[in-house]
Amino acid sequence: MRGHPAWELLLPAAAAPPRRRGRSLREALREAVRTGRLAPGTRLPSSRALAADLGVSRGLVTEAYEQLTAEGYLRSDRGSGTWVGGVARAAAPGVRDLAPRPPGTRVDFRPGTPDLSMFPRSAWGAAQRAVLAELEHRQLGYPDPRGLPGLRSALAALLARRRGVVADPERLVVCSGVAQATTLLGFALHARGLRTVGVEDPGSPEHGRLFAATGLETVWLPVDEEGLVPGPLAASGVRAAVVTPSHQFPSGIAYTAGRRAALLDWARSVDGFLLEDDYDGDFRYDRAPVGALQGLDPERVAYAGSVSKSLAPGLRLGWMLVPEALLDEVVERKRTMDLGNPALDQAVLARFVADGGYDRQLRRCQRAYRERRDALVAALERHFPGTEVTGIAAGLHVIARVPPTYGPTTRFLERARAAGVALRPLEDYGTARFTDTDPVHLVIGYAHLTPGDIARGIGLVAEAYGTGRGRDGG
Amino acid sequence: MRGHPAWELLLPAAAAPPRRRGRSLREALREAVRTGRLAPGTRLPSSRALAADLGVSRGLVTEAYEQLTAEGYLRSDRGSGTWVGGVARAAAPGVRDLAPRPPGTRVDFRPGTPDLSMFPRSAWGAAQRAVLAELEHRQLGYPDPRGLPGLRSALAALLARRRGVVADPERLVVCSGVAQATTLLGFALHARGLRTVGVEDPGSPEHGRLFAATGLETVWLPVDEEGLVPGPLAASGVRAAVVTPSHQFPSGIAYTAGRRAALLDWARSVDGFLLEDDYDGDFRYDRAPVGALQGLDPERVAYAGSVSKSLAPGLRLGWMLVPEALLDEVVERKRTMDLGNPALDQAVLARFVADGGYDRQLRRCQRAYRERRDALVAALERHFPGTEVTGIAAGLHVIARVPPTYGPTTRFLERARAAGVALRPLEDYGTARFTDTDPVHLVIGYAHLTPGDIARGIGLVAEAYGTGRGRDGG
Repeated sequence: MRGHPAWELLLPAAAAPPRRRGRSLREALREAVRTGRLAPGTRLPSSRALAADLGVSRGLVTEAYEQLTAEGYLRSDRGSGTWVGGVARAAAPGVRDLAPRPPGTRVDFRPGTPDLSMFPRSAWGAAQRAVLAELEHRQLGYPDPRGLPGLRSALAALLARRRGVVADPERLVVCSGVAQATTLLGFALHARGLRTVGVEDPGSPEHGRLFAATGLETVWLPVDEEGLVPGPLAASGVRAAVVTPSHQFPSGIAYTAGRRAALLDWARSVDGFLLEDDYDGDFRYDRAPVGALQGLDPERVAYAGSVSKSLAPGLRLGWMLVPEALLDEVVERKRTMDLGNPALDQAVLARFVADGGYDRQLRRCQRAYRERRDALVAALERHFPGTEVTGIAAGLHVIARVPPTYGPTTRFLERARAAGVALRPLEDYGTARFTDTDPVHLVIGYAHLTPGDIARGIGLVAEAYGTGRGRDGG
Repeated sequence: MRGHPAWELLLPAAAAPPRRRGRSLREALREAVRTGRLAPGTRLPSSRALAADLGVSRGLVTEAYEQLTAEGYLRSDRGSGTWVGGVARAAAPGVRDLAPRPPGTRVDFRPGTPDLSMFPRSAWGAAQRAVLAELEHRQLGYPDPRGLPGLRSALAALLARRRGVVADPERLVVCSGVAQATTLLGFALHARGLRTVGVEDPGSPEHGRLFAATGLETVWLPVDEEGLVPGPLAASGVRAAVVTPSHQFPSGIAYTAGRRAALLDWARSVDGFLLEDDYDGDFRYDRAPVGALQGLDPERVAYAGSVSKSLAPGLRLGWMLVPEALLDEVVERKRTMDLGNPALDQAVLARFVADGGYDRQLRRCQRAYRERRDALVAALERHFPGTEVTGIAAGLHVIARVPPTYGPTTRFLERARAAGVALRPLEDYGTARFTDTDPVHLVIGYAHLTPGDIARGIGLVAEAYGTGRGRDGG
């Protein structure tokens, strides 16, 4: 049989250490069939002949033939030998880069990410160790899809205290973040017969993409300096809307008391619901944070938040407080999506919150982010005098209106990009379109950048305009 | 103003340490409005009067009034004072117990859970520490929804080696387990226009519940001793089906080579797909595991597995290898469901797999579970002679057919329950219904029980029949 392709292909496997030889033979034979090096229909040597040529026991070859015959790679008829069966090959997979970054970016002002270097690795590690040492075995089993009871209690207490929400642990669903909360709520609204949902304009286009996955169409609804405008909301026919009342994204306003009351009146009158996306409500710099809308009517407002801005998006941990009328559907959706969040992560966060570690982390971030906000405002004042900056009281981003002399927007962004600075225009977040004589409206994220990076980034753009004033002096 | 309800309700808050007094006042006032102790319409004292009565600075009271007015709990008109606004109360939440257990259960033979005490806490903890020490900051950001590249490569290599799959990391989607994989695939099939999907009979009813959430109706399709029967499959009109070829759940058979080929021929002829649920393919006791069906045609078979049986269900970590034609839809669904699995958990598993820890854990479980299987077979032989046990070559459960003299099934289960032993009949897993003269068909999970528990549990049922043979001797 020497010269038979099987012999040559299997020689290296036959030279494996005795303990692994059986597996190696099976793997080599399977691979040879799969890649077509042993073509379909090829008749294999008898196990006796192949074993002799390879210098292995006949049992090993018989076992490999039997295994691959059971799996369908080989075919055999008693007495008439063994052939190679047919195998379909995999198509060459398309390689997809799902997180493209503009090449050559030196400073990235695109909003949405906190400073990942502030993740409290050692405190988190200590909580992990404590959890692994103390967790009962049964808590490693299939979790309650709503979340670990201990985490739900800890979060309910935290949110009641920090955000003024009505937080009953029975109504709190641990989820993987605001994105999942949005999807869960979208499915629950769809199950109630809704087919459209309102989103703020300006607002996050991501809400629309998430709702689309649940069968809901989104309707942009105008936001003014007090919040979502009641008239267009009522006229739109939607019975649900997403809102960011504490620090509207991206405009940065806080909803007024009058607008809050009007929104809740509307929700009651249409038997509707609001999703309060409290994406950065913990970060307010100059006074106490505005309490959540949900506290005023927990049966009309679902409240969603996460640790993505306070700890790290990569933890994929968040929460939603759900009106009773939507709770069963939300929990069943959570169950079919993933059976609940990972138990160890939940236990670690519960411990971290209960220990006060979460509050400490928020204070730490708040200090750092306020400093960065100040650095950004100062850099804009210095390099682009006349720029109006709003939404600075809270959050991780601002709106900057750069004087029209630096415009139009497309040219501004191009120059910034050429200088290695990534920026996003307000036009990315809604339906507003600006003319060449309007200011350049930018949404600038600052929380993930050091004060030095911020000054450098704005300086780089200024240099591209020949208005740079040097690194240090004025 | 003494005697005004606000004065009494706020006294304890006013006694808080100075640093916390402002927050305490706000919280007490908010809570008083919310609970109705300050009724809507109640006029509040002037800030000057209340401050004097409480013995706090007027600024603190003004700030609390302003904050709660901004939030909508209070209303004010300049010059004419401050009133309590309207607040809707939360309905009393229904308390739901989502994991009911039969009360008084002493030994629980229901299948589906591994031995949670075998979770390798110290090795896992070591991997956690290493990951926290080494992970780059950026890996804590929003993850690639498909999973960390390092984990996808490690799993692809592991699955190719252990399960004979065609595992390209570009095709591997990290997910939270087989349940999520099923939901993801269901949505992708629905997007291709499918409205029905076949499930094995007997099989897991959970597949049907998961597919229902994606808009797919399930059709039970008979399984015989070789696998899914081709005739009824072709006649059903479905273009997709879930299969468990390595160790059919719950019957325990392995699909024959002929049936594997017939299934793939069918899939190609209807432009259809198979979901291979490899729920326990790693646990085969008497010879090498049967390779996965996916290896024979990776463009027609999606392959799903998880660490739920090998490590712990609470980790919520699994994977799916996806045919190219379904990949984009599956990835976009994964994105809208949760933006991807937690990054730290993924990095820990990647390390654990790459270090060989996963292989060690599988060997450890395999030894323990084989011993438990043997204990179960021995206990049944001893206490219920004539019982036929099948599906023993692999997995974490067996099918036992107890002689009809112990039947009918309902009486058997009642007696077991009365003795504190939870058991599940085969009838829970499909459409088969047995008569009183049939054997008692049981699906018995053993992996989560010690050999001692297993012997005790079967002994308890036997005692209820007066056939118990004592704890130790024959």
